[in-house]
Amino acid sequence: MKSKFWPDQIRNLIEQLGIAHPIIQAPMAGGPSTPELVAAVSNAGGLGSMGMGYLSPLQIEAEIRKVKELTDKPFSVNLFVPEEINSLVISEKVLKQLEKFSRELGVELPKLTLESEFAFEEQFNVLLDNDVQVFSFTFGVPGKNIIDRVREENITVIGTATCVGEARALAEAGCDAIVAQGSEAGGHRGAFGSTDGTPMIGGLALVPQIVDEVQVPVIASGGIMDGRGIAASLALGASAVQMGTAFLSCIEAAVPEPWLDSLQNSKDTSTVLTRTFSGKYARGIKNRFIEELSLLEDEVPNYPIQNSLTRPMRNAAKEKGDAGFMSLWAGQGSAMSRKCTALELIDNLVAETQEVLNSLTSKP
Amino acid sequence: MKSKFWPDQIRNLIEQLGIAHPIIQAPMAGGPSTPELVAAVSNAGGLGSMGMGYLSPLQIEAEIRKVKELTDKPFSVNLFVPEEINSLVISEKVLKQLEKFSRELGVELPKLTLESEFAFEEQFNVLLDNDVQVFSFTFGVPGKNIIDRVREENITVIGTATCVGEARALAEAGCDAIVAQGSEAGGHRGAFGSTDGTPMIGGLALVPQIVDEVQVPVIASGGIMDGRGIAASLALGASAVQMGTAFLSCIEAAVPEPWLDSLQNSKDTSTVLTRTFSGKYARGIKNRFIEELSLLEDEVPNYPIQNSLTRPMRNAAKEKGDAGFMSLWAGQGSAMSRKCTALELIDNLVAETQEVLNSLTSKP
Repeated sequence: MKSKFWPDQIRNLIEQLGIAHPIIQAPMAGGPSTPELVAAVSNAGGLGSMGMGYLSPLQIEAEIRKVKELTDKPFSVNLFVPEEINSLVISEKVLKQLEKFSRELGVELPKLTLESEFAFEEQFNVLLDNDVQVFSFTFGVPGKNIIDRVREENITVIGTATCVGEARALAEAGCDAIVAQGSEAGGHRGAFGSTDGTPMIGGLALVPQIVDEVQVPVIASGGIMDGRGIAASLALGASAVQMGTAFLSCIEAAVPEPWLDSLQNSKDTSTVLTRTFSGKYARGIKNRFIEELSLLEDEVPNYPIQNSLTRPMRNAAKEKGDAGFMSLWAGQGSAMSRKCTALELIDNLVAETQEVLNSLTSKP
Repeated sequence: MKSKFWPDQIRNLIEQLGIAHPIIQAPMAGGPSTPELVAAVSNAGGLGSMGMGYLSPLQIEAEIRKVKELTDKPFSVNLFVPEEINSLVISEKVLKQLEKFSRELGVELPKLTLESEFAFEEQFNVLLDNDVQVFSFTFGVPGKNIIDRVREENITVIGTATCVGEARALAEAGCDAIVAQGSEAGGHRGAFGSTDGTPMIGGLALVPQIVDEVQVPVIASGGIMDGRGIAASLALGASAVQMGTAFLSCIEAAVPEPWLDSLQNSKDTSTVLTRTFSGKYARGIKNRFIEELSLLEDEVPNYPIQNSLTRPMRNAAKEKGDAGFMSLWAGQGSAMSRKCTALELIDNLVAETQEVLNSLTSKP
């Protein structure tokens, strides 16, 4: 066991991030991380994170401005490292199934192009132009030009790893901190570096192994829902936690009712890992779309193709409140969700963490 | 977050078990948990566990006697709740592949029968006749007659759950404590109750949800390799931990060299979940057998049929020191293994756990 002096590490990271508590709200692109949620988290002493991977540079700029109107505290902006699109050839069976679903929802399958929707560098430049203090990313390692710019501007940069090898690559690329995404996590896997598929390592095993490998602070994520999960993560050597699912039920998050209901009604076995929605493995609550497409799972085209193909039907399902065709992203701790404000959640998390740690060291 | 008073729970469980530290060595049937290992763990203040599921009543009795010669401390005996064998029809493709492997290893495929190898009740009676103080089991819930006998004899009984529903069933059946087996765990999944396949819930999400569901103490297992993992498990609300992989590298364990080497050379991504060896999902280090049979994974007959079919080749592989055909069971923390005695391991684990907890509550 590598002996690091835990509290020093935690203090160093929260000082670098300019926050009061070692709690980061996960980015959650595609809607949930509203400016209101991000600002509320940062105002409560955590680090709010804007999941901007799906937005245009103009949209990102507008969102950042909204956050800045609501808080003068630091927050992070998260982008997706782009992936090359090699082919637009799609399995006939998958297309047929998606066409059937689209008809049912009254939408059409979109036209596909070999271009990424938005240039990563243009998205990134918005961060620089708007004095964003923390830049986080998922799905890879950005080019050296990006990391160099980040360093010049004194922006803190956080990458996402699902295994030790990915963490090493991120540390070598110059990340200031690394999110260790355990298999418990909801939403997309941040995996990018493995030749053996998508690593699915539980946090209890993943966090200490990454802590032992890299010199930078590690941020535990996946299945953390209360002070017990936070205290456990810190014990494993993490310097902070990143929580997504726990913030979905905050009143400031923009989560459609059917999704919220599915969280409230979920149990520990409700989520599955699926690539049916986007072509990239992600964890969500099992529904009709996942079940009906599960037999074609291996034939689904890679991200971002499948993601583009299913977007119109997912949007239509949201409009109609149809949980059967929405991506109900959730981690394995979803049943521990609680409805409250972000401030209440963070206040409770901090108090609970202290209670757990005090209990464990109290003398009889 | 359910507020239980942690240290009281931990104290209650270790007092009930008659041990000094909240550390249980996992049973590990099929060889590793030798009488020497079990006794060394119990002598060091943990709870040694004998994995006796594969042995005849006579063999179990002989093993218990050996342990009793080496320690007067409590230890547990673990048995497998039997599963019904409905059919001996086996996929031709699987048979062909297994015959090929058997020829390569110079063994023959065994004759199969619809009977279980040993009657569970006869195995169980050996425990009663030999004053075993702790009875643990896996793969189900024993009948009421068994639990009633356990209660009459004042034996502590521990079941294994991989999800909240299974934990509830075990608590209702009268278990005194429940092992929460996270997805990180090496060896066989203890799953028995789910209609949705084999639950794979990471410990960070699983342990607190089971703690919230049942009134009896919860024992965390899966991926726990050092004091960080133990401190984290206690923070999650567990009253003790059960560790398997960590004890494989103890000098008292009977682990063949190729298996030990595979642990030493493993990394976080080395293990896979497979049913190729036994017909029941288990986690082990990927090798030739798993890879070559992986395409037929869905056609492999259920446990215990496949387990019986592959036994001669696994035994031959052990004899020859051929890692390609051995079941190299290991959890996702295998890379954190350390070679030492069981006493050294437990002494270190206790000191590390204290160090972690003290660090986290020390004031600057």
